[in-house]
Amino acid sequence: MNSEKINGVTQTLWQENELQDLATRAFQGLGLTQEDAGQVSKVLIQADLFGLSTHGLSRIESYGERLQVNGINAQPNITVQSPALALRLVDGDNGVGPLVGMRALQAAMDAAKQCGIGMAFARGSNHFGPISPYSLIAAEQGFASIIGSNATTTIAPWGGSDARLGNSPLGFGVPNPGGNPFLLDMAMSVVARAKIRNAFKRGESIPDTWATDQKGVPTTDPKAALDGFLLPIGGHKGYGLALMVDMFAGLLSNAAYLTHVKSWVDAPDEPQNLGHFFILIDTTKLGSPQWLAARMMDFAEILHDSPPADATRPVIVPGEIELEKMAYQKQNGILLDPAVVELLYHHAKGAPRA
Amino acid sequence: MNSEKINGVTQTLWQENELQDLATRAFQGLGLTQEDAGQVSKVLIQADLFGLSTHGLSRIESYGERLQVNGINAQPNITVQSPALALRLVDGDNGVGPLVGMRALQAAMDAAKQCGIGMAFARGSNHFGPISPYSLIAAEQGFASIIGSNATTTIAPWGGSDARLGNSPLGFGVPNPGGNPFLLDMAMSVVARAKIRNAFKRGESIPDTWATDQKGVPTTDPKAALDGFLLPIGGHKGYGLALMVDMFAGLLSNAAYLTHVKSWVDAPDEPQNLGHFFILIDTTKLGSPQWLAARMMDFAEILHDSPPADATRPVIVPGEIELEKMAYQKQNGILLDPAVVELLYHHAKGAPRA
Repeated sequence: MNSEKINGVTQTLWQENELQDLATRAFQGLGLTQEDAGQVSKVLIQADLFGLSTHGLSRIESYGERLQVNGINAQPNITVQSPALALRLVDGDNGVGPLVGMRALQAAMDAAKQCGIGMAFARGSNHFGPISPYSLIAAEQGFASIIGSNATTTIAPWGGSDARLGNSPLGFGVPNPGGNPFLLDMAMSVVARAKIRNAFKRGESIPDTWATDQKGVPTTDPKAALDGFLLPIGGHKGYGLALMVDMFAGLLSNAAYLTHVKSWVDAPDEPQNLGHFFILIDTTKLGSPQWLAARMMDFAEILHDSPPADATRPVIVPGEIELEKMAYQKQNGILLDPAVVELLYHHAKGAPRA
Repeated sequence: MNSEKINGVTQTLWQENELQDLATRAFQGLGLTQEDAGQVSKVLIQADLFGLSTHGLSRIESYGERLQVNGINAQPNITVQSPALALRLVDGDNGVGPLVGMRALQAAMDAAKQCGIGMAFARGSNHFGPISPYSLIAAEQGFASIIGSNATTTIAPWGGSDARLGNSPLGFGVPNPGGNPFLLDMAMSVVARAKIRNAFKRGESIPDTWATDQKGVPTTDPKAALDGFLLPIGGHKGYGLALMVDMFAGLLSNAAYLTHVKSWVDAPDEPQNLGHFFILIDTTKLGSPQWLAARMMDFAEILHDSPPADATRPVIVPGEIELEKMAYQKQNGILLDPAVVELLYHHAKGAPRA
């Protein structure tokens, strides 16, 4: 642990292994086994490494509240079935989302190792963090990935006037044996709900393109937006993409979908039965690492070489910002909100002695 | 064949089988074997049935020009390799796109039947029509699908100022044993390039949100837009999605990608080496047809029940417009541009006598 002055305030910077120890103990304090707590922490810390603090260890607040009212099962019996050579059906038994996510990712990678492509459908899950940590783990082992999850309803159908679909995240990864993998992690709304929640916490207004109020009218008030619903990118196209993610993650996985997904805010003690899907492709079956590295480097170079419209902002490839942030924080330490640190210490007190 | 008055003009309406015969003979006239010509015609006629006339038989114009200058190989030797149980590598040998597409679709369905999920990467291909015909064929046989293709560069990287990526189409399908499948077929631009080409042909101006001119400045002139590049949906999100499609369709399939894709307008006599990918999932491995039908009907019902923002425009599910158009045209006949009909007759003259 070391510290740094940021905006005049002394902030604590964490080494990854220190944070892994603390977060693991915190999730143990919430009832998880040491191994499971370690897996969940790994995903959330990876989010913080990427700078995605809204989807990182800050989630211990909502995960913790739900674990404490038994809305999430602290010690689930996660099962994996194989209905076909390359398919896996994962039942998360209402476990913490990143735990179910990691189990499903592993199952899909196993299937892909065997068949070249593998897919896991997960049900009985909860919020599983951001997608890019999973895509990175897959890419580091040579797998390209398409990963999605459904979510609490916050978006109206295109042309409709109430929230009936989730702001389902969709992510992609392509490994690069010679450098940065390609990582794309996006939701179908113009912005994430967490961004509106943060604006509300800071007492700031929001652009009127982000969300509407309860009646479907665009609003600049984050409170009204949190009571209303998010707007999708590209109109009917973003609507269609969000539906597709819910069909693969929820409908086909035998999880809840659309309005069947319970809100963890309104009903924290009830299982959400969220679903995820993981499609993994073993790129080593397509060509040598040298072949892939050469193509990935060339691909990025072509994009970087486009003359920027604004000379001060060169063209980037998806994933670059997160991977740079990760490299910086691995070197200099990870910045965490002091309130999150406090909560981690609070829950860690309940952990069994090592 | 029958006829109907549309906007005061008498138009000829075609029965599907009549059109299949004529189009097959037209592609035979362009040098394809009868079987291959039939496959290509099937895909393009399905596009016309869906009302996607810009991607239907009208394409015989550009396909025909390129076949005549040997830019496309009329009688390709398409090969299929299996580097892993569920993977297929299709080399299209520069054949007509829909022919390569149909071969790759079949290869991926075969792999999915065997393993539950299957994927085909196609290289050495050309423009393969719209995606929804493939998704429909797959859905009718119980397969969910994720399908994409790369394309001639018409979009600038986000923040860049020249066209370095294609307006790559991406499509999804989910079967419904009880009614309409879900079909989503979209490109990453706000509109398709064909829409701008049509506006240009009709001498109409376009909204300034569709594309920019050569210098990256938004334009209402379709000619300037055709010389410039398209704008993506959702800014960096649409940019990221377009890159993902090109990585799966072009980079991983060992086809051309980004600026390596030759323009069929500037170099009609050179192979484009386009790539496609087909991911197929055998939904019969996930549950019974009754289970899937019940969930699909419920899914659509939840969306349809959202009170419309505009009372005259009820909420729809992706694919509904196309499937309704198909049902209507199967009943009443297919409407075709007379210039396309003339071109079909022209090429059919060169077909061998049956």
